[in-house]
Amino acid sequence: MNRPTEDALVDEVRALLASDDALLVPPGHDCGAVELEGGVVVATTDALVEGVHFAPGTPWEAVGAKALLVNLSDLAAAAALPVGFEAAVVAPPDRAAEALPALARGLADVARRFACPCLGGDLNAGPGPVVVAVTVVGRPGPGGLVTRAGARAGDVLSVTGPLGGAGAGRHLAPRPRLEEAQTLVRHGVPHAMMDLSDGLGLDLARLARASGVGAWLDADAVPVHPDVVATARGSALEHALGDGEDFELLVAHAPLAATDTARLAAEGVTLLPVGRVVDRERGLRLRHGDETVPLVARGWDHLRAQDAEGA
Amino acid sequence: MNRPTEDALVDEVRALLASDDALLVPPGHDCGAVELEGGVVVATTDALVEGVHFAPGTPWEAVGAKALLVNLSDLAAAAALPVGFEAAVVAPPDRAAEALPALARGLADVARRFACPCLGGDLNAGPGPVVVAVTVVGRPGPGGLVTRAGARAGDVLSVTGPLGGAGAGRHLAPRPRLEEAQTLVRHGVPHAMMDLSDGLGLDLARLARASGVGAWLDADAVPVHPDVVATARGSALEHALGDGEDFELLVAHAPLAATDTARLAAEGVTLLPVGRVVDRERGLRLRHGDETVPLVARGWDHLRAQDAEGA
Repeated sequence: MNRPTEDALVDEVRALLASDDALLVPPGHDCGAVELEGGVVVATTDALVEGVHFAPGTPWEAVGAKALLVNLSDLAAAAALPVGFEAAVVAPPDRAAEALPALARGLADVARRFACPCLGGDLNAGPGPVVVAVTVVGRPGPGGLVTRAGARAGDVLSVTGPLGGAGAGRHLAPRPRLEEAQTLVRHGVPHAMMDLSDGLGLDLARLARASGVGAWLDADAVPVHPDVVATARGSALEHALGDGEDFELLVAHAPLAATDTARLAAEGVTLLPVGRVVDRERGLRLRHGDETVPLVARGWDHLRAQDAEGA
Repeated sequence: MNRPTEDALVDEVRALLASDDALLVPPGHDCGAVELEGGVVVATTDALVEGVHFAPGTPWEAVGAKALLVNLSDLAAAAALPVGFEAAVVAPPDRAAEALPALARGLADVARRFACPCLGGDLNAGPGPVVVAVTVVGRPGPGGLVTRAGARAGDVLSVTGPLGGAGAGRHLAPRPRLEEAQTLVRHGVPHAMMDLSDGLGLDLARLARASGVGAWLDADAVPVHPDVVATARGSALEHALGDGEDFELLVAHAPLAATDTARLAAEGVTLLPVGRVVDRERGLRLRHGDETVPLVARGWDHLRAQDAEGA
């Protein structure tokens, strides 16, 4: 088989990723560049590994789309807005010609939908599995950035949608909550925020740690996604807490009046309360009615590549 | 073996990468952020694959250092300056605990030397080989950006150092020509610039294409690095043109007076002339004395993972 050269394949991919945005330096040079109004730059990176984050045989368009979407979800968590992205792909030479243009189409589709142009990329041979590492550069929205660190005792913990069961297919097309984050910030809601990628159990432990607080979850309030099927490995609640790849926002905020919740809903943001922030000494607990048990921070540990119990 | 959890390992790595720079949002949140004076953001990405870009068994410190250095070399090519970096690592779980802290030390050492703080990262399990994908965010230097696109017929082509033989070990510690690029721009020298990663033969073809020009190289002028040993696979000149990973700058510029060259040398920039830019119709040629032959754009094609002939 007469394989295309790297340069030919890069040309094909570059054409697929061509952007209408006014780039100061377009792809094809050593660095991409884009002009910013303000002076703050935000960046986040996430890699997808074949066989770990997507099954072999998954359409490459979906893989490319997911690679950018998960990074945009991280931007949303910071209430940031996209500026552009870089993509590094490692692929076996004999699969690159098939995979790359499709990956690029998936990336380009998401790039257009979220105004996040391609700034550049890098293509490398490897024995497999295919790795797609995307870095998104962003900027703060008009209301500034939000971190994981601002939660305080007394805050309500809410999520922007139901959790669990994303492995059924939903994980391939997460919906980054960029607009929702901007709406929340415009109304001064978030004290702290993060996106749920590794499961509410593990991710909440991370937010609590960053904020120096404890947290209680209400078992009856955790919204279980219809995709969840209770299995021998766990109850529906355990799946909602531990499956991961939900890509909803977890928000710590002051208690809201019903009118505030209604106003947010009218602007397209659902906030589902799942628990409370407490003093650090009270730890992480799961409340079942009047009883509480320690919240085992089950979730996705990337190094164990399986459900794991975090700190 | 009792492996550390992902979060424990990430903590260890984060401590190694902690920066004195005033980061608006430090690592540990969903996005890193850094404040910029100006409004232009530059970004570049490069991934290193075990067994392709570095031999198995290479000290991880050296791999981490190289992963950042090659990206800084791309910044230098654009006459940009570093703002910060993101790193995504894919590693087998049973090797992560050994590899990651050492990788982080290598990254941190280079980050300090070049004032390029870590903005964040991503850690993922994979079956191997280890992949280290780094993205550097930058900003233009005071003289603005330089691209591959400004070369014009009549320009001299120069390189900032001898070429070839980097595989003997030099490739692990490339020296990004960030300062040299700033000096060149301060003196208004570069019309077009790029860094030589895949070999002068192939890279010159890329610069010529981006600029819409042809180019002639003078075989007697190409500076062959002392590391080059002529082999059955090629003469010393062929190695200098095709080995790759030189990470010197290729600069297209107006002919310089001897006093200009001397002044640059006094400021630490060596410009070694290797050829001329010509009209596109005259193509890419290699001059041996009075004769010229077509320049076969030999160099490193990442998809063929071998010496290849480009367009």
